[in-house]
Amino acid sequence: MRNGAEETTVGELGEAGVLARILDRLGPSASAVLGPGDDCAVLGFGGDAVITTDTMVEGPDFRLAWHGGFELGRKLAATNLSDVAAMGARPTALTVALACPADTPVALLEEIAAGLDAACQELAPGCGVVGGDLGRAPVLMAAVTALGDLEGRAPVRRDGARAGETVCYAGQLGLAGLGLSLLFAECAEAGVAHRRGLAELRERHPAAVGAQLAPAPPIALGAAAALAGASAMMDVSDGLALDAARIARASDISLDLDPALLEAGFGVQQGQRVPLDAMLFGGEDHGLLACFPPDAEPPAGFLPIGAVRARAAGGALLLAGAACEPRGWDPFVSRVPG
Amino acid sequence: MRNGAEETTVGELGEAGVLARILDRLGPSASAVLGPGDDCAVLGFGGDAVITTDTMVEGPDFRLAWHGGFELGRKLAATNLSDVAAMGARPTALTVALACPADTPVALLEEIAAGLDAACQELAPGCGVVGGDLGRAPVLMAAVTALGDLEGRAPVRRDGARAGETVCYAGQLGLAGLGLSLLFAECAEAGVAHRRGLAELRERHPAAVGAQLAPAPPIALGAAAALAGASAMMDVSDGLALDAARIARASDISLDLDPALLEAGFGVQQGQRVPLDAMLFGGEDHGLLACFPPDAEPPAGFLPIGAVRARAAGGALLLAGAACEPRGWDPFVSRVPG
Repeated sequence: MRNGAEETTVGELGEAGVLARILDRLGPSASAVLGPGDDCAVLGFGGDAVITTDTMVEGPDFRLAWHGGFELGRKLAATNLSDVAAMGARPTALTVALACPADTPVALLEEIAAGLDAACQELAPGCGVVGGDLGRAPVLMAAVTALGDLEGRAPVRRDGARAGETVCYAGQLGLAGLGLSLLFAECAEAGVAHRRGLAELRERHPAAVGAQLAPAPPIALGAAAALAGASAMMDVSDGLALDAARIARASDISLDLDPALLEAGFGVQQGQRVPLDAMLFGGEDHGLLACFPPDAEPPAGFLPIGAVRARAAGGALLLAGAACEPRGWDPFVSRVPG
Repeated sequence: MRNGAEETTVGELGEAGVLARILDRLGPSASAVLGPGDDCAVLGFGGDAVITTDTMVEGPDFRLAWHGGFELGRKLAATNLSDVAAMGARPTALTVALACPADTPVALLEEIAAGLDAACQELAPGCGVVGGDLGRAPVLMAAVTALGDLEGRAPVRRDGARAGETVCYAGQLGLAGLGLSLLFAECAEAGVAHRRGLAELRERHPAAVGAQLAPAPPIALGAAAALAGASAMMDVSDGLALDAARIARASDISLDLDPALLEAGFGVQQGQRVPLDAMLFGGEDHGLLACFPPDAEPPAGFLPIGAVRARAAGGALLLAGAACEPRGWDPFVSRVPG
């Protein structure tokens, strides 16, 4: 099912040919002194650099039957850009290491490249793919590394939250997890019926399915939060509860989430009803969780969802003042539904 | 064969537990303002930054039956450090994205981490692993991204060679390709006989097997060559002939390799006889190919192997003045022997 008879495969074109086709799809990085094509790309930084890396593997992390290549490319970029934003940095460059079977259509890699480029242009203008690598693997896998420029600011770490601060969140919350549950419930099987089911699911739940397959986190709000004085910030990728507990442990405080604020701010997103459980434990939101001191004005887009308290007996994570188990996503321990 | 009954697996320990064990094996980067553990690491640069990425997948790129984890870690670091060196930069940091089956022993990942760390300490002191990711995949795969600091120097690109310059090479040449041929010829089958054969092969051909399984390229010579005035430089990873042709095409000159100089400089390395064919077409050497103007003094460690000529009718690559086909490694087109 991977390939129709008429499509050129990666194995037929070879590494150099494929890379030439992919590079055509990629806009430049404004920070690149030297772009792709040499042993390394060269980047200029105005301040300290931030760097993060993430891998996605066909099967555990994505299904080509759900993602088109374009959406997959968008997700690959967005999930890494959000880590850069969460340090208060402006994303400047990506490198992309792809490996795939020899019978992979070149068109699929071109779509992935187009999705990477679209995500950069929409979410982080000036950021671009500056280098990459293409190898052979039994399934499609992609490792993206993202760089950002702190532009003279100090990084916003996860250990700076202090009692008395406001906990805020920006971005979609719980939608991506809801989308994954829906996809597993209704589109777990491959084939024609599956593709029809996927189209119907997209029509019924466009926000949830879109958030799962091609998230669009509020990347520019990362630097804005840093400028506004955020004391601690994280990209929420493994679920709000788990990532909130990480800030709380690192900062040695308790983070008290308010269900009423969560409901008010995120109970309905783009017409999609989102239950509290999905908000707390859904994962893959890639929004920004940040703490702001009382005298700071959170940038528009951040909504209050709780308060920072002195470390409570109940633990790192509280929900309406009561202990809350910070469960979430672990690629080896978690079991996807369905 | 992946796992003995008594070993803890990655699936049992989970991502957080494995990462904690791995981080214990890794020394710091001298350039890290903030090390692993947040959304991103933070790095300071004295000049422009260089960045490169490379993926290795179990099967096409390495066999666990040949590499121990330690040697694999060394190779993962060395192959990326050499790309940084080839720009004339000093390597400062690595990120490592690993993905593996759930039944992978944690001990294997610890050995890989120890190998990464050893390579940094030996080949590029001050460089360290600043971040990573661990996911699930059907086979072991690793994507390493390396960063380096140009420290105010201009990057040494591949397009700066000029007629009249001397072509030099530093590092092992052809040994790694020879090692791969020997491994395929004598140790292609798995099992007990294979392990005994591998031990014997290591005894008979330690330099060739070592160069293939755990190369130790002359990383510090990259910045030294830049300071000495190198006009063009590349890491030789796909074979001298192919990579020399890339410099020649990018610089619009012909690169004329001298078989007598190659024989004199690299005919015997660490007691191992190396045929000219292995030097030219072997691949995976990760040494430095550089061009120096007549008034430059190549740093000790670089040996002359040819001359830069005005673009000749014979093509980009010449051998003793005659045309030479620049064949080499392509992960999709090349067929490994055996």
